[in-house]
Order: sequence, then structure tokens, then C-alpha cells
Amino acid sequence: MMKTELTRKLKIEYPILQAPMAGGPTTPDLVASVSNAGGLGSLGAGYLSPEQIRNAIREIKKRTDRPFAVNLFVPEQPSTPEDTIAEMNSYLNKHRLEIGIAPNTSIPKFAEWFEEQLQVVLEENITVFSFTFGIPSPGIIKSMKQKGILIAGTATTVDEAIALEAAGVDAVVAQGSEAGGHRGSFLTNSADTLIGTMALVPQIVDHVSVPVIASGGIMDGRGLVASLALGASAIQMGTAFLASIESGAHAVYKQRILSSNEDSTEVTKIYSGKAARGIFTGFMKDMRCYEGTIPDYPIQNALTRDIRQAASKVSNPEYMSLWAGQGLRLAQDHAAAEIVKQTVEQAYLLTKSMGNLGKRD
Amino acid sequence: MMKTELTRKLKIEYPILQAPMAGGPTTPDLVASVSNAGGLGSLGAGYLSPEQIRNAIREIKKRTDRPFAVNLFVPEQPSTPEDTIAEMNSYLNKHRLEIGIAPNTSIPKFAEWFEEQLQVVLEENITVFSFTFGIPSPGIIKSMKQKGILIAGTATTVDEAIALEAAGVDAVVAQGSEAGGHRGSFLTNSADTLIGTMALVPQIVDHVSVPVIASGGIMDGRGLVASLALGASAIQMGTAFLASIESGAHAVYKQRILSSNEDSTEVTKIYSGKAARGIFTGFMKDMRCYEGTIPDYPIQNALTRDIRQAASKVSNPEYMSLWAGQGLRLAQDHAAAEIVKQTVEQAYLLTKSMGNLGKRD
Repeated sequence: MMKTELTRKLKIEYPILQAPMAGGPTTPDLVASVSNAGGLGSLGAGYLSPEQIRNAIREIKKRTDRPFAVNLFVPEQPSTPEDTIAEMNSYLNKHRLEIGIAPNTSIPKFAEWFEEQLQVVLEENITVFSFTFGIPSPGIIKSMKQKGILIAGTATTVDEAIALEAAGVDAVVAQGSEAGGHRGSFLTNSADTLIGTMALVPQIVDHVSVPVIASGGIMDGRGLVASLALGASAIQMGTAFLASIESGAHAVYKQRILSSNEDSTEVTKIYSGKAARGIFTGFMKDMRCYEGTIPDYPIQNALTRDIRQAASKVSNPEYMSLWAGQGLRLAQDHAAAEIVKQTVEQAYLLTKSMGNLGKRD
Repeated sequence: MMKTELTRKLKIEYPILQAPMAGGPTTPDLVASVSNAGGLGSLGAGYLSPEQIRNAIREIKKRTDRPFAVNLFVPEQPSTPEDTIAEMNSYLNKHRLEIGIAPNTSIPKFAEWFEEQLQVVLEENITVFSFTFGIPSPGIIKSMKQKGILIAGTATTVDEAIALEAAGVDAVVAQGSEAGGHRGSFLTNSADTLIGTMALVPQIVDHVSVPVIASGGIMDGRGLVASLALGASAIQMGTAFLASIESGAHAVYKQRILSSNEDSTEVTKIYSGKAARGIFTGFMKDMRCYEGTIPDYPIQNALTRDIRQAASKVSNPEYMSLWAGQGLRLAQDHAAAEIVKQTVEQAYLLTKSMGNLGKRD
């Protein structure tokens, strides 16, 4: 039944994790559907308030009694000078005008409530806590372990995977360069360490003893079998679920996912201040000519929030952050359970034919 | 015996191609060793004169009676203005001084002898002709077919693969972003289309009917099985053979290959004028600050030739082009036949365990 070290640990049927796509796509419906289908759903809770997280977890639990994960962003201290922030904010007024919202002279607040978010995760009795952008303190890791919560961290290089294992994680997500959304890099410049999944997974597998979850460009049963061959214990798929029926992604975002190609994405810092892969937009094109410095995350994220929200209201994809990976031609608008099922069925057939390939004559 | 559509077509034992690494590594010894071990050796002949190609082919044939490939670069017309070239040439004098060679005021000639190179390939009775950087004319493709020579072209996107199939190639090399050396892109900006192997291979497989050869980040039996799972009919490995005993790579280049990590490379145009992935060097670091335009290939290649040759003489890797892919931690200094054998043995074991994984309980 395609059991691996990790499926046993997580008590799930198939080694398929749904990526924690923060910012809307991971509705309680999507998370629960993936878990009910035998995979592991994940709530991308990085941008949610503690109360929103609590509500989402409870909504998920109404829909499934199977394990699921909650993902948070490990905060960093931004160090952008005030005038750099002001320069960006003023530059963005041109785009605010274009999208039909008021100019902004005051710098928006950016809430950081990691401690409070963690508290909810600890209280709400979940199976897996995953995180991105760094490593939580030893105290946090210890609290999670005491509650019996399994911990997964994201690595984009071998060194990051080693650091995560040393910190005590139960599994490492190896995020290849194909992956959509934010780069999880925390030891190196996130825009520079774009190691492809095919190269990254076996090298991480060779250097850690915890199970490795392959992510980046994996869209179907072929990607699942390929990842297991590379030594991964499971896969994480994001883009594959982005246009699914249960996904909370905006309708025009889903449309773009379904109509874009493998070469439609770029890695950019302009939406949030952190490198992330998304479908190329008019906003990305314009910001290529921006001569100032892009403020750190989460400042830039706060600065562009009103623009992204307005774009969403008027269904203008050119100002949305259309996070997506390089497997775009394989995205489907089916139900999440159907995507899990197809992936598993295709993988079964493939592993059978791979077994035959291995017979010596 | 791990037979695929392509191994039958090529009459080789294992679906393992050695990448045609131009500029030294692919000695007749390396090419013949890979072919004798049951794979397909490739002569990277792009930079060789017609006479050098003829001699190399004859040397290979002395060492093996098995099939092998010869790879050429499809020429493009460079369009760099004279003053841009002169500015670069004058800037490079700083580096010529540093490496201890005379400044250069005249612009070096760049020989293009594609027609003459092709003539040798047609005359010398080889099995496979592969090419990079574009598509040869219909006349050339026809001549090859008339001689019974199999043709393989390089694609970095789905559209390039479709164009290659339409031109009549027998196989498409899907070059993922992990790959070392020159990007084979010819329909789009080569520095921009960095699609990871995990994402690229299945998408190309879905859009062409000729066999697909996976390349980029593939270093061992795990990469072989993963690629076959993605739908490839064979793999192409370059970096895996770069530090092999038979490789003609410079000793300090081999040393760097063996001591570098997955995040040690960058894609750069500064050596040749075309985007290529190599281990980061002092020359690459310095050229980041170059404010002019980098001349097109093959002009820039001609401009940096004396510097690279001098660096080679004094064993200074900082001025060499240390082309390498992102699988660097898995490179080995064994004999090429040993690398082929290890890859096959590991793949056999893996396919067997994959077959078991596919059993439903």
C-alpha cells in the first residue's frame, strides 16, 4: 500500500502531503479532503491570526478525524531602513492609482504573532506542525514534542536539512527550485539557492537520517514514484492542488494556473520581500525597473497588501501574487480527493512496470 | 535488462548517456569507456576543428566497436556592436594582467566551421549525431537520416521539444535547470528558462512522441530510476563523469568537482556569451560588477580564450570555466565503467524495491 517510514509515523495511507499554501488556497475543505483521501492536508497558517487558526483547525476537524498539519512562518527581524520603506511605499502609489485605491503615505503595520499562533497549535491537538523560513527555538520544539506533535521543517540546501535535523525535526521537506510560493531558505540567500528537486533530494537524503519529503515540480504519480526512487519518504504537492475544487485560490488565479506553462513563472521578492516563485504578472514586470531596494519580509508584504486585496476584489490577476511551481501544464481542476486518487493509481501502475524493468534477463 | 525504446534504437545495453561536455572532458578514452560499459559515450565536439573531430572519432573507434555520439553546436549569427566587443576586450586586460599574460588590443578571431564539422560527422560513420543551441537545417537532418545516423537535439522547454520533434529528431534531451555547462535554450532567453528536471521531463514526455532523455542533476541509480518513472527513456549524465579517471578535465577542475556542494554553482554568460552553469569562480565574482554588455557567443568565448588557457597552464581554477551541475556532492573519481556499473546496479536494486512498493495489500 505504498507504505514508507513517514506514512507509518504520520498514520496516513499514502505518502502524499498537500503543501501549506498560505494566503487563501488551503481552506479547511481542501485540508480535510486531502486527509480524508488518505494523504496529509496542511493548513498554510502563516498569515492567519491566532483566532483564525483556531477556527480553521476546528473547521477541519469537523470535516475529518484524520491527521493534518498546520504550517507557520518562523519570524525574522527585518532590518530595512525607514527611508527605504518610505521610498517603496511612495513608489507603490503609482500602482495604487492604477488599481483604483487611495495612495498611502503612512507605512502599514505588520503584525507578528508567532508566539500566539504557536499557542493555538499547541492547544488544538494537531498531528503535525510544519514551519518555513528558519528554525523555531529549542523551547518551542520541546513543547511540540511533549504534546506528541510531529515536526517538519523546510530545507532548500543540504546544510539547512542538517541544521533542521540537529534541531530535532521529525522530517525534512526538501524544497526544490521548481516549487511554487516562498523559498524556505534560511541559511543562504533565498534567491540564489535554487537547487532542482532531482539534485536536491538524494543529496539531502544522504546527509540526514530523518525521513525526507520531496517537493518542487511534483504533479502526479510519475513525480511520486520518481521522488521515492530518489530516496524521499513522501512528496509534497502544492500547484497540483491549487486549481482543485476545494482550493480557496481566487477564480482568476485558478484560471491562470490552468492556462500557464512550465516557463510562465519567475522567482520574485516584490510581493512580500522574500523570494517566491509565481506566474509572471504585470506588477512583476514593472518592478523590474524599480531602482530602490525592496524592503525585507514582512514589511514589503504589508506594503503591497492593499494592492493585492484590491486586485482580488476587481479580479485583476496582474497585481495578485500568483504563486505556482514549474509543473503548471499538469495542474487540474478536479476535486482534491480525485487528484490524490489519480496520483496513487498512476504510481501503482508505474511501480509495477518499474519492477518489471528491474528484472534481469 | 532495463531495456527502453531508446536502448533498442541505439543498440546499447543501459539507458545511460554520457553528456557531450565540450572543451576537454570528453576524451576518446572517456567516450569509449562509457560505450564499452554498455552506455552511450558522447564526444563534445563543438569547439573542435574538423580535423580534430576526425582524429577523435578514429581514436574512439580504436577503443570500441560500440555505438557512440558526436555533439556539435548549431551556430547563430552574433549581433554584438564593435564598441561593445572592444569595451569587453579592454576590460579583460585587467584579468590578463592578473593571470600574467599580455594585454590584447585586437579582437580575437572566432572560427565557425559547422559545415566542415558536419562533413566529418557524415563521413566517419557514427551512430548518433546530437546537437545543442538550435536546430540544423532540413538539409542537414536529411543527410544524417540518409546515412542512417540517429539524431538527438536539446530542449529546455516544452516548445523547444515540440520544435525539435517537428524537425525530425529521433530523441529529445530534456535539459533541466540542474544541468552543468551550457543551457541548450534556443527559442527563449537561455538564462530565464531554468525549468527543473522533475518538472520538465514529464511535461516534455506528454508533448512529444519521440523518446526523451532526462538530463540535469542525475548522478546515480536513484536519478536513473526517477527519470524512467518520469517517462524518460534514458538519462544523460555529465557531472557524474567529469571527475572520472578517463575525463580530460584539468586536475584542479576535477578537484573542485569533488570538493564542491550542491549550492556551489551559478548560471553565467561571462565565459562564452551564452548562459552556462558552473562552479562559482573569482572571475565570475568580478564580472558581476561589469557595467557593459557581455558580447554574444561565440565572441565572448573568443575574448576569454587566452585567459582560460593561461589559467589552465598555471592551474588557477578561478579563471577556468568549471562547468558543473547541481548534483556535485555525488561526483566520484572512479573509472567511467565503474560509474556506469554502480548506476545500473543501484537502479536494479531500486526497481526491485519499487516493484514491491507497488504491491497492494
